[in-house]
Amino acid sequence: MTMSHLAFLGDTSTGSVDSRLAEFFDERGRLARMYGAQYPRLWKAAHGASRGGKRFRPLLVIRTHDELGGTNPTAAVDVATAFELLHTAFLLHDDLIDNDLLRRGQPNLAGSERDRARAAGLSERQAALWGQASAVLAGDLLIHFAQSMIARIDVAHDQRTALLDLLDESMFITAAGELADVALSIGLHTAELPHVLDMTSHKTANYSFCGPLRAGAILAGADDETLSLLGDYGNLVGIAYQLQDDLLGVFGDEAATGKSSLGDLRENKMTPLIAYARSTSSWASVDHLLGKPDLRDDEAELLRGMLELCGARSWVEELIAAHIGDACGLVAASALPTGLRDGLIALAHSSVERVA
Amino acid sequence: MTMSHLAFLGDTSTGSVDSRLAEFFDERGRLARMYGAQYPRLWKAAHGASRGGKRFRPLLVIRTHDELGGTNPTAAVDVATAFELLHTAFLLHDDLIDNDLLRRGQPNLAGSERDRARAAGLSERQAALWGQASAVLAGDLLIHFAQSMIARIDVAHDQRTALLDLLDESMFITAAGELADVALSIGLHTAELPHVLDMTSHKTANYSFCGPLRAGAILAGADDETLSLLGDYGNLVGIAYQLQDDLLGVFGDEAATGKSSLGDLRENKMTPLIAYARSTSSWASVDHLLGKPDLRDDEAELLRGMLELCGARSWVEELIAAHIGDACGLVAASALPTGLRDGLIALAHSSVERVA
Repeated sequence: MTMSHLAFLGDTSTGSVDSRLAEFFDERGRLARMYGAQYPRLWKAAHGASRGGKRFRPLLVIRTHDELGGTNPTAAVDVATAFELLHTAFLLHDDLIDNDLLRRGQPNLAGSERDRARAAGLSERQAALWGQASAVLAGDLLIHFAQSMIARIDVAHDQRTALLDLLDESMFITAAGELADVALSIGLHTAELPHVLDMTSHKTANYSFCGPLRAGAILAGADDETLSLLGDYGNLVGIAYQLQDDLLGVFGDEAATGKSSLGDLRENKMTPLIAYARSTSSWASVDHLLGKPDLRDDEAELLRGMLELCGARSWVEELIAAHIGDACGLVAASALPTGLRDGLIALAHSSVERVA
Repeated sequence: MTMSHLAFLGDTSTGSVDSRLAEFFDERGRLARMYGAQYPRLWKAAHGASRGGKRFRPLLVIRTHDELGGTNPTAAVDVATAFELLHTAFLLHDDLIDNDLLRRGQPNLAGSERDRARAAGLSERQAALWGQASAVLAGDLLIHFAQSMIARIDVAHDQRTALLDLLDESMFITAAGELADVALSIGLHTAELPHVLDMTSHKTANYSFCGPLRAGAILAGADDETLSLLGDYGNLVGIAYQLQDDLLGVFGDEAATGKSSLGDLRENKMTPLIAYARSTSSWASVDHLLGKPDLRDDEAELLRGMLELCGARSWVEELIAAHIGDACGLVAASALPTGLRDGLIALAHSSVERVA
């Protein structure tokens, strides 16, 4: 999932977050030298895993803090960095759960550690075990240190408690979404549309939108009304963002998205798009193709055609438009400062106008 | 690893920790109902995973706090509970890394969730995937909430920072030990004796002994000298404890330990006992038996005999005695209160006099 070219974030530099991440990882990497040859490598690999994204979540924290008149940029950078650490941990453990060894076409941490163990002469089984162990531990460490970074920021007791509550919520809800995603994809849970929509909201919208927006606002000393509004806005835009991501996963231009538009169809990834299609009578004729590990291009075309014909694509597009409309309506009717209001409206639109 | 009948802890009740754990898990379980049918089950399973141990680490926290004249029992119970949550998370992810579906002869969380998915009609592959995903997420949640519990305790800023530092250290060092354990067991790291001893110290002694002892002392407002002494003591006793555990894993009475005395030999678990044996010339004749997945009883007897003959067993026994002697010497020469001094000396001896 790339988050490039999102309006609202345009002027905010990722420099301060990149520096804070580098400082964090370098310090841990140095300490790790006291604990065997492999441990510094793990920290280096974890730093690598934190790269390649657009620092979208940290930028949301910082920009919201700034636009709401916050005066604690140091704390904002720490909280922003904590969200990026958490995001990296979620990616690592999401791949682990899915047994994926690639991300964006490149070996992920588990994949590259497996390759390294293989190159050192270990058997396939042992090398795979090493890759998996590395991913488990790197994710564990980042989950811990994200929370530790939040716990240490120098703000008033009430603010720190509010941030701790927020991170608890992000962790609690994201894990719920991740679990539901697995349950739906293996069929432990019936893929009814409301469940699939809930999963989408839980797995992504909370920690990617609601969490960072509210964290920036808490640091700026925003009132409960503002926090609640940002939470509602974040949930709407986060769901719309994920729905757009699902559309791109099936209908996107591979050259722009950088990932195969066959992947989601081959994996039987359970999305609202698919859940809607399955609820229509016309879908039955092509359902057997979904989840076919060796799905051919012509079969994928057939599935895409049916996703349009059965109304699933336009239903998702309308749902996206409705969510964005609601989100913008909330913000337009609010008493938020003009800069933030304009920024959030631009962010909402650009979240779903992207092609990658 | 059982920790029954350890002196020093005898009078301290686990009731307050059990209650706090129940409160924590019940509250999360209730909230989880809002997030699908599977999520409350995951929290229930995580609560289950936290049971069955002797609450050894929490008791160390509470008893040390009390003996040092601490006056914050509520905070002591929270910190104690956080260590138990962390311990549970480590067990879950340790089993995940080892692909173990049993603990103490019973299905662990991954194993019982796999069984449940299988009973619901899922394929073997899908059921295994479900078990694994459940273990990843349960461990992640407990790592996060252990830290969250520490971050929220109501103590002075300096004390909280000291506790956060301590938990950072426990997490950092335990992960290092876990990684080294995997590296040694698959042969990515040459199993030289100093490395294997370091791994033993890192993987267990820190979070099981040094961490809880110092946490209790921090809460009681102990000075740096006391903290440093407890750290040194904890490391010595923790290593001795683990060495004794390694001996029991090979020479122990199955009826008392509750686990097969073939397991460690079949798994090629890398311990100082084995690393020492391998450094002797007489070991070469039996080395091919080590790690044999279907090792027979008579072959295990041969290995045990050679572990004695080559001097490995007596070397480990002497090392244990030396560590316990050093630990008791430190305490005896210290200015610790009499109750704590006597307790720590009794704890040191009982850590290695156990049969299970």
